Amino acid sequence: MKIVRIRTEEGITYGGAEPEGIRVYQGSPLVAWEPTDVVVPFEQAHLLAPVFPTKVVAVGRNYAEHAEEMGSDFPERPILFIKPATAVIGPGMPVVYPPDSENVHHEAELAVVLGAVARNINAEDVQSVILGYTAANDVTARDLQRMDGQWTRGKGFDTFCPLGPAVETELDPLEGLRIECRVNGELRQSGSTADMVFGIAELIEFITRVMTLLPGDVVLTGTPSGVGPVVPGDRMEVEIEGIGVLVNPVGRL
Amino acid sequence: MKIVRIRTEEGITYGGAEPEGIRVYQGSPLVAWEPTDVVVPFEQAHLLAPVFPTKVVAVGRNYAEHAEEMGSDFPERPILFIKPATAVIGPGMPVVYPPDSENVHHEAELAVVLGAVARNINAEDVQSVILGYTAANDVTARDLQRMDGQWTRGKGFDTFCPLGPAVETELDPLEGLRIECRVNGELRQSGSTADMVFGIAELIEFITRVMTLLPGDVVLTGTPSGVGPVVPGDRMEVEIEGIGVLVNPVGRL
Repeated sequence: MKIVRIRTEEGITYGGAEPEGIRVYQGSPLVAWEPTDVVVPFEQAHLLAPVFPTKVVAVGRNYAEHAEEMGSDFPERPILFIKPATAVIGPGMPVVYPPDSENVHHEAELAVVLGAVARNINAEDVQSVILGYTAANDVTARDLQRMDGQWTRGKGFDTFCPLGPAVETELDPLEGLRIECRVNGELRQSGSTADMVFGIAELIEFITRVMTLLPGDVVLTGTPSGVGPVVPGDRMEVEIEGIGVLVNPVGRL
Repeated sequence: MKIVRIRTEEGITYGGAEPEGIRVYQGSPLVAWEPTDVVVPFEQAHLLAPVFPTKVVAVGRNYAEHAEEMGSDFPERPILFIKPATAVIGPGMPVVYPPDSENVHHEAELAVVLGAVARNINAEDVQSVILGYTAANDVTARDLQRMDGQWTRGKGFDTFCPLGPAVETELDPLEGLRIECRVNGELRQSGSTADMVFGIAELIEFITRVMTLLPGDVVLTGTPSGVGPVVPGDRMEVEIEGIGVLVNPVGRL
C-alpha cells in the first residue's frame, strides 16, 4: 500500500492512497493503526512528508557513475553522513536557497523508511525492520560541501530533505526501480536502484552496527549520476518507479 | 540553578539540585515547570542525561592546540558535524567500545543546551535561546574517523555522547571555565573555555544560519588538546568548572 500523511480541515492524519482518494487511518503505521470509513478526495488532502524521522542517515557515492562525476574513487565501504530531521519537508514545499551558497544541487534518491527499532541487524533480516520506500531529494549546497570537507553543513540546511509523496510498502528495489530527476521538465538524472554500489540490506547492516535506527527514521541510499545546479524558480521532480513523483519548487526567502 | 533529570522509584522527572538533595519539578524546563515539595536524597536519585536532544550539533577543531595535535590547520570557519540523539547517555552509563574500532578517544567538551527554537539567531541575541551548559564527552573512534573522511560513523556510535551531570543555567563560559578530562584519575586534557577559536555566540549564529535548533538540542563546542585512547575498563571523567564531573566507564558488549 501507499502510506501518506495529510492535512485536512480536521487536522493531520495518516492515510492510505486508494483509487478514489485517501482513506484516513486511526493511529500510526509505526505503532498500530486501522482504517476508518472516511475517504478524503485527493483535491482536499494536502500531502505532508509521509514520515517524521528522528534522523536521516545518508550514504555518499553509492552509484559508481556519480562517484566518478564527483572526481572520487569507488568507496570501499559506505560513507555515512546525517541530515537533521529539521531539513525534512513534504511534497510541494519549497526548498529554500540559502544566501550562503551559490551552487545548490538536486540529488534524486531512494529512501528506506524504518518500521522498527533497528540495532545490529544482519543483512538477511533487514526486511523485518523496513516499513517501505519513498522518494527523496538530497539537496546539497555543493560549494559549501567542498569548502568544509565535512558534508553536514552543505547538506543540512532547513528544507534540504524533501520526502514523499508516499511510503510504498510493497516494492523490491533489488529488481531495479527506475529513478529520475527532472528540473523544469528536463531530464537530469536517470538510473536504476539495481546499480547501487552497496545494496539496501548491506547499508542497513552497516549503519545499525554503528547507531540504532528508530521507527520512522530514513536511510538515503545515494544518487545516480547527473546531479547539477538549480536556481530559485526551478521546479524539481524526483520520480521513482512504483512510488510516484516528488515535486518541490526552489524558493528564496 | 543546576537542572537534572532523575529516575526515582516513582519514575523519571526533572529536578533541581539543592544542598540537601534533588528537588522534584513538575513539567519541563523547556516548556513550563514548577517546584514541588518533594526533595529526593542524592543516594536515591539515579541521574540521567539532563536533556533529551533531537540532535547534537558539534564543531571540529575549535581549540587551536587540538587542531595542531590532529595535524590540521586552524579552520577559517566552524566545521560542523552531527552526533545522533541515539548516541546520548547519562552520567555513569558505560560507553560501549565498538568491535569495529581499535582506537577510541575521549574528548572533553562544553555543551550548550538550547532552551528555545533557534533559527537565524544573531550573535548578540544568543543568550535568549540558551537554557544553560553541561559537560559532554565527544567520544570518537579515531581510526574510523580517519578512514571514512566523513566523521559521522567514527563519532556516531550508540553511547558515544555522554552528557551531564547537570545543566547549569548561571554560567558565563566567556570568562574562561576550566575544562579537564581524566582517565583513571590521570589528567589527560586541561584547557579553558576562553580559548575556543569560535565563541559560543559565533557558533550558534553560524549553526542557526543553516539549521533550526530545537529546545533541548545540544551544541558541542570542541575539545582542548590532549585527546587520547581509552580501553575497556577505563574510567573517564570530564570536569567543567561550575558544572561538575561527568563520569563514564568504558565497557564492551
